[in-house]
Amino acid sequence: MTDDRPPSNSHNASEPESSRIRTNSSSLALRPLLKRPHASSNADIESAIRQPGSVYINVEGAFIVDNEDGVSPRGGEDWKNGEDGDVKFDSNIRLPNQTAVVSHIAVDIGGSLAKLVYFSREPSTSLAPSATNPSATSHKAIFGPQVSAPGGRLNFLKFETIKINACFEFMKQLQRKYNASNGSGAAELCVMATGGGAFKFYEQIKEALGVKVLREDEMECLIMGLDFFITEIPSEVFTYSETFPPTFLPPRPDIYPYLLVNIGSGVSMIKVSSPRNYERVGGTALGGGTLWGLLGILTGARNFDEMLALAEKGDNTNVDMLVGDIYGTDYGKIGLTKTTIASTFGKVYRKKYQAEQYAEDHGGLANGDWSHDDGAPEGGVDRDNRNADEEDKFRPEDISKSLLYAISNNIGQIAYLQAKLHNLEHIYFGGSFIGGHRQTMNTLSYAIKFWSKGEKQAYFLRHEGYLGAVGAFLKRQPRNWGRRASIDGLGEAGGFLERVRSRGEKG
Amino acid sequence: MTDDRPPSNSHNASEPESSRIRTNSSSLALRPLLKRPHASSNADIESAIRQPGSVYINVEGAFIVDNEDGVSPRGGEDWKNGEDGDVKFDSNIRLPNQTAVVSHIAVDIGGSLAKLVYFSREPSTSLAPSATNPSATSHKAIFGPQVSAPGGRLNFLKFETIKINACFEFMKQLQRKYNASNGSGAAELCVMATGGGAFKFYEQIKEALGVKVLREDEMECLIMGLDFFITEIPSEVFTYSETFPPTFLPPRPDIYPYLLVNIGSGVSMIKVSSPRNYERVGGTALGGGTLWGLLGILTGARNFDEMLALAEKGDNTNVDMLVGDIYGTDYGKIGLTKTTIASTFGKVYRKKYQAEQYAEDHGGLANGDWSHDDGAPEGGVDRDNRNADEEDKFRPEDISKSLLYAISNNIGQIAYLQAKLHNLEHIYFGGSFIGGHRQTMNTLSYAIKFWSKGEKQAYFLRHEGYLGAVGAFLKRQPRNWGRRASIDGLGEAGGFLERVRSRGEKG
Repeated sequence: MTDDRPPSNSHNASEPESSRIRTNSSSLALRPLLKRPHASSNADIESAIRQPGSVYINVEGAFIVDNEDGVSPRGGEDWKNGEDGDVKFDSNIRLPNQTAVVSHIAVDIGGSLAKLVYFSREPSTSLAPSATNPSATSHKAIFGPQVSAPGGRLNFLKFETIKINACFEFMKQLQRKYNASNGSGAAELCVMATGGGAFKFYEQIKEALGVKVLREDEMECLIMGLDFFITEIPSEVFTYSETFPPTFLPPRPDIYPYLLVNIGSGVSMIKVSSPRNYERVGGTALGGGTLWGLLGILTGARNFDEMLALAEKGDNTNVDMLVGDIYGTDYGKIGLTKTTIASTFGKVYRKKYQAEQYAEDHGGLANGDWSHDDGAPEGGVDRDNRNADEEDKFRPEDISKSLLYAISNNIGQIAYLQAKLHNLEHIYFGGSFIGGHRQTMNTLSYAIKFWSKGEKQAYFLRHEGYLGAVGAFLKRQPRNWGRRASIDGLGEAGGFLERVRSRGEKG
Repeated sequence: MTDDRPPSNSHNASEPESSRIRTNSSSLALRPLLKRPHASSNADIESAIRQPGSVYINVEGAFIVDNEDGVSPRGGEDWKNGEDGDVKFDSNIRLPNQTAVVSHIAVDIGGSLAKLVYFSREPSTSLAPSATNPSATSHKAIFGPQVSAPGGRLNFLKFETIKINACFEFMKQLQRKYNASNGSGAAELCVMATGGGAFKFYEQIKEALGVKVLREDEMECLIMGLDFFITEIPSEVFTYSETFPPTFLPPRPDIYPYLLVNIGSGVSMIKVSSPRNYERVGGTALGGGTLWGLLGILTGARNFDEMLALAEKGDNTNVDMLVGDIYGTDYGKIGLTKTTIASTFGKVYRKKYQAEQYAEDHGGLANGDWSHDDGAPEGGVDRDNRNADEEDKFRPEDISKSLLYAISNNIGQIAYLQAKLHNLEHIYFGGSFIGGHRQTMNTLSYAIKFWSKGEKQAYFLRHEGYLGAVGAFLKRQPRNWGRRASIDGLGEAGGFLERVRSRGEKG
């Protein structure tokens, strides 16, 4: 890097405090930030050259939209069960300078969630028909043809993959609106697809929409999406810890190399040296799918949000074995305090045994019931360990917190080790597992700081679940270029791909 | 290292094949090995200088005893519920040259298991009373006074920590036998204790036995115990893989540096540079306690052996999400085959959802029952994923295999990363979690080979659960030396501590 731009780790310490950041409730914590539309604070954005009518995405001046600004009714909502099926809307990103028609939508279908990204014109513009499109008022302003400012916005939605048909149904609605807005002469809507589901559901998407489906490599999309968020979007990337307020980083151009830790059903860790130079250096099968699966059985929670809500109220020390439970004190000689978790779920076996002993002594307690039996006091040989009755219960809250800690901490440790091994300073956490959840981010952040002895830092994103989808969205090149190959020469001047290409040459 | 002894990684490839190694069933697989008493194959054992009557352990010519040789009735049994409570006996180690009285026993009390090591005279010697002890025939030959060959043996037992009183009761029996054998003039039996329980149960041990309890640092004991097993005991250390027969390594003197991965309730990873120079570089709370706890709840198995037996019969792909489940094919570009586990338990959530959908549609299925309901076919929005009815069940066997894989593989990956980071060629796995279990060792071995691209190797031990206990046992120094400090100058010539000290100076 020979660039003299600001150092990559400069923080914007003046951002207001927020105790809780969620991409699906950004309206609460981030309102003070978002009331003022952010112009990009990146001083040296390359000057954009407009080429009206071409199919590229102009990201200049992009910013995240608060859902209470009166413009974005869908910013950051919880799962809702609407006509489209279960769907969750996350905060939009305003693209005030994107004026061309966008004739594609992008979907990233993972093992547990399908993420959808599409562009929509600003509703207000449809009320002021432009010279080039007198018909704009007659339809909802989805995919409206080129008009002057204020451009439009990127919309972010997710569906559960087990309800993938709801996702397809939503895409069909977008298609109908697109066709209605643009008429029969317009380019056909196409679908950019990535993630494993782009392959598994390829025929189904084509069949459902009757359109062209372009598949993109998942890792490349993740990397391109992350590049977009880091370099272009203010108030997107932040650091987090329990003791300090979250701190947003301004967009910055020099981002390579870094470690991307993408946490979905499973976890991939990708060393990225440039937009085209990356390697999956590791990963773990202990990811979001593991937590969902275990907590689904153990707690009765019906979705990830319910599990996270349980974890908020839990006390993991009721099920985890701490160093103090083994030693009765610290084990300071090797740096373990008595509150260090020695064994996740390490107390469960003991309590199960005690409950069974009680059942044998009292002739009750069918197999399997012990974990929620309120009446069984501790029994067994070792009377010295006797505690209160409540020890025999495993509260869903405690179980949730224990396993959330365990999965997050494990990912954090492996991520640190990979970053250390490959000499990578920045660790970005992406993927829908995080979901802006305070405890998850805090655990990941703490793990990185603990293992690196403060040398490394975890970075999070407000759209962490959409790296692949937005990457696929941005990969779409002008339709008259034929089938795209690499990102070499992709995109026109001023567009995002042109900037990535430019960075790739420098990096 | 300036030593010219054989290279540290020389394997004894001529050992017979064994499909299954368990310290508690060594009589089956290892019989061909153990029928011939092993003299130590280490050519350069320092010549032992006997000092009759002193308290040190002479390890020359030590070997593991098969339990069907007619001498060792307690070698390698399963848990048994006897008069002593639940106890498990592992293979003895014969010490043919240990002639002095041994006036101590050693116990390592962990979060889940208490491990006990003690010395006993050979029964046959008690039938031939020696000149110095004409009364030897009148008692069981426990802690018998000095007689001529054939010496005695080390005994290895474990108890569950929740039944710690059974362990204390057993220790009291040993004490009674010791007192009966040695009379009122003999040195008082003392207890060497390590592990967290040495602190937590300190007062209880003292009270139960009315003797001196000497506490030793857990890490130092682990290291000393491992040193003993590697350097002195033939057929103790071995490599393992699914495709090749287990290969035993002959005892070897130059062992440092190495990574010790001790898997108990939790996992500690210790970089050991010499007997006195070590650092706990990492660890994970996802250990044996986690597996016991989760499987205790999820499968109804009542102990670890039952869980392992379940895992043997399971098919993890019924609950784990594979790369092929997401992609429908390989993701070869980044090195993932379709059979790679992408997400442990990643299929569970989907199946739970489908079972609940079915219940809603059919008005049955109380909360919590779905996981074992045989009758509920798959339901839900996504009919395209429909499979056989049996998909809705989570078999205890499949759950056990999935979680055993996950915990083992995770430990293996972190161990590899730590070994790589600290440039350590040898990785030794200790701790009772392994228990000689085929799948566990195979998973750990595979993980080390996979991540290191074949560069590193996992080493296992037949007494893997007793590193700390045997280390504490060997730390006992002559009683007229006063309270011991470090191992500097410990032990007399020919004893184990003397050899360790000698290696420490060279290393």
